[in-house]
Amino acid sequence: MTTPSPNLQGVFSPVLTPFSADLRPDPDRFVKHCRWLLDQDVGLAIFGTNSEAASLSLRERIDLLEHLVANGIAPDRLMPGTASCSLTESIEMTRAAVAAGCAGVLMLPPFYYKGVSDEGLYRSFATIIDAVADARLKIYLYHIPPVSQVPISLALIERLLRNYPGAIAGVKDSSGDLDGMLTMIREFSGQGFSVFAGTEALLLANRRAGGAGCITATGNVNPTAIMRLYREWQGPDADLQQQALIQSRGAFAQFPMIPGMKAAIAWKSGRSDWLHVRPPLLDLDENQQQALQAALGAVGFDIPNAAQLA
Amino acid sequence: MTTPSPNLQGVFSPVLTPFSADLRPDPDRFVKHCRWLLDQDVGLAIFGTNSEAASLSLRERIDLLEHLVANGIAPDRLMPGTASCSLTESIEMTRAAVAAGCAGVLMLPPFYYKGVSDEGLYRSFATIIDAVADARLKIYLYHIPPVSQVPISLALIERLLRNYPGAIAGVKDSSGDLDGMLTMIREFSGQGFSVFAGTEALLLANRRAGGAGCITATGNVNPTAIMRLYREWQGPDADLQQQALIQSRGAFAQFPMIPGMKAAIAWKSGRSDWLHVRPPLLDLDENQQQALQAALGAVGFDIPNAAQLA
Repeated sequence: MTTPSPNLQGVFSPVLTPFSADLRPDPDRFVKHCRWLLDQDVGLAIFGTNSEAASLSLRERIDLLEHLVANGIAPDRLMPGTASCSLTESIEMTRAAVAAGCAGVLMLPPFYYKGVSDEGLYRSFATIIDAVADARLKIYLYHIPPVSQVPISLALIERLLRNYPGAIAGVKDSSGDLDGMLTMIREFSGQGFSVFAGTEALLLANRRAGGAGCITATGNVNPTAIMRLYREWQGPDADLQQQALIQSRGAFAQFPMIPGMKAAIAWKSGRSDWLHVRPPLLDLDENQQQALQAALGAVGFDIPNAAQLA
Repeated sequence: MTTPSPNLQGVFSPVLTPFSADLRPDPDRFVKHCRWLLDQDVGLAIFGTNSEAASLSLRERIDLLEHLVANGIAPDRLMPGTASCSLTESIEMTRAAVAAGCAGVLMLPPFYYKGVSDEGLYRSFATIIDAVADARLKIYLYHIPPVSQVPISLALIERLLRNYPGAIAGVKDSSGDLDGMLTMIREFSGQGFSVFAGTEALLLANRRAGGAGCITATGNVNPTAIMRLYREWQGPDADLQQQALIQSRGAFAQFPMIPGMKAAIAWKSGRSDWLHVRPPLLDLDENQQQALQAALGAVGFDIPNAAQLA
């Protein structure tokens, strides 16, 4: 008998997926970016919304995951997104993540059909858990109604936790609803359930309420400062740090988030191939890149150790 | 040089996908259902919304397509849905459909990211067309904003038609917006572009305006009557036929559409395994099945030649 490991805590980033000019994933830049994030103590929520995971095939996601592990990225720092609309692909990707030793998986509900019932969503998660049938599986539910349009209700979390206490490990709340996140923490974190904010703008509120941290897109570009607040939330300048994080985030939020972060990395690392995104997203044009650089300059933003990404 | 074949017209059905009790697709019942639809002159829009295609993997869709063709289903009657959120999976599925000789493909926009631009959607379709690079490719754009939440605008259709006149063959309009459908017919059907209504409730309006017909879920259960109106739209009782179709459809619309149609086929064919749906959908329970049977009985509904589906 081994003791089950505690559920994850900390700051995670949905790792941006680098593409080449012909829109293929670039595995070597991907490894480099993951190493750089780990050097800042930021965990790897690969294949999230901001990773353009929806635009990748199952095969591409499995290949990239295996490439990371083969290149020494520690699987106990990995929380891949493993769900798609397809029940069978979600099962296959989740199996691959567990087989690779990933510490957890981030799981969207199936998001094509709208207005589905909690019973249907419950059966979807339950079918995946039963099919994977591995005690190492740790699921972080992914609540992101602005994008998925399919919310994960408190009643659904409660039922899943009751019936699969070993497999249901936490939630990423990207609803942007502070009260909703605090309710999740109050209701479920006593059972070791990890509630992650979906943005560092709610990191301090999350930590003060007893949450597990955040899983945030801008971890890709601003990891050090976010990790500092995660650690120093009880310190004297925590509120000032939170304000600074909101300001930096605001500079990015003037632009489409994924292409904007990629353009910032391209700029700071000197690797212009970081600009590429898959359609339906659009890479920033020259004017937008200059406006982004001006906006980031105005708040004194810099990417730490960007040379490491070159 | 061969003359390009004219774009498709007629009545198509998003073919229901039969599952076994363990939620695997049942290829043999699938062939049987396709044969029965073809016997009613209804074309096969396999892997549509009502086919639960979103819940299938790429591998399952390719295997089912190949199984149909290997079992004598004429590819010139097939219009598979080939798009998913993933750019690479959409390309691979579209290639498989063209290689199988399918008359056309029905193509959703990528639907995970919301609020994307027409430019991004244009690049998505263009990237797929350029990657498939086959003059046989005929795309029917799939406009279904209530489900995809990503509409296909008139400006996008116009631009795609202008730049890919050979590949862009038509649209399925499942918006439910009569005026929008009539506008599409007025703007584009002169160029041979086929505008299909997404429901038989708008079939007569579609035909009178010069549209191509309909692609409708209830073709799975009511093919004969729908096909009759398609043929007899200029006849003296076309309006009465249209009213009768709306009434039959209304009986189904009291229940979740996909499980309801499957329950009707299970009832009339005596094959209870037709009840199965994949989560997040739910199969009808006993009470719902009885209520459905009563609702169908009240409008005198029957499935023609249902014994053929047993």
